[in-house]
Amino acid sequence: MPQRQDPTPPADKAEIAAAQGFIDLKHGALSYIAADGLPGISRIAIGRDERGVPLTLISSLAPHWAGLQAHPDCALMLGEPGPKGDPLTHPRLMLRARAQFVGAAERPALRDLWLATHPKTKLYIDFADFGFVRLIPVSGLLNAGFGKARRIAAQDLLHSQ
Amino acid sequence: MPQRQDPTPPADKAEIAAAQGFIDLKHGALSYIAADGLPGISRIAIGRDERGVPLTLISSLAPHWAGLQAHPDCALMLGEPGPKGDPLTHPRLMLRARAQFVGAAERPALRDLWLATHPKTKLYIDFADFGFVRLIPVSGLLNAGFGKARRIAAQDLLHSQ
Repeated sequence: MPQRQDPTPPADKAEIAAAQGFIDLKHGALSYIAADGLPGISRIAIGRDERGVPLTLISSLAPHWAGLQAHPDCALMLGEPGPKGDPLTHPRLMLRARAQFVGAAERPALRDLWLATHPKTKLYIDFADFGFVRLIPVSGLLNAGFGKARRIAAQDLLHSQ
Repeated sequence: MPQRQDPTPPADKAEIAAAQGFIDLKHGALSYIAADGLPGISRIAIGRDERGVPLTLISSLAPHWAGLQAHPDCALMLGEPGPKGDPLTHPRLMLRARAQFVGAAERPALRDLWLATHPKTKLYIDFADFGFVRLIPVSGLLNAGFGKARRIAAQDLLHSQ
């Protein structure tokens, strides 16, 4: 079957800035494949590593920990509608991503970065069951309502060098 | 490997009422498997059919239409954090569900039900590419923060008879 061309135009500078702003919202919805092979969804906290890659902190007791271990491909939605108007016309960012679990060597540096943006996490960040997971962007889609979608390249979601 | 017992207690009456209230929020995040087999996520409008089953209205041009056609198992999250406090402590409802596409015979009745709760949809509800999809609950989880999860049985998410 021939591939259809993607009809979605790429984001311009202002739209890329808007997408970056969504990642800084600090929480989002994670779509993942659970350990049983069926789709799951969870609210997760979002931070960023030193390059701007989205980062989350998860308990190994949470079902999305086991899910991401078994199936690293996942998707993320950031940006919530306000109380007024049609929620489907409020802008949001959707990312397709791959989860990469962070090892012990990197943990202290990421812990400091995380606490700088998520100070309340101090209550549980050092619990033995919590670990960092990078959600490495594969592609992004900014959607501001019907017919207002823009493609965002993965590298445009990182901090500019 | 022996199955662990589910340590999550069942919801009481007040928690079931809270879960019902989340379905009435009229929008949520849908976790689905896209046509390419990878997880996707979309914001969707939520209504309810005559029995209270969550219902959505999707364009067949949307990627989640093709995804749900290929893989009916999906998950839904409803309930958004306010602007204050730790977003992970704000309550939300997560459903595991199966998508069931609605045929032409049922469409007029569901159209009337939908417009009663979603009057702004009048602008596009009759477009040829839009169709209703039931998201039949399989199980529910109400989460009001760390250690505050409750199981909700699928039948408790319908209208009481």
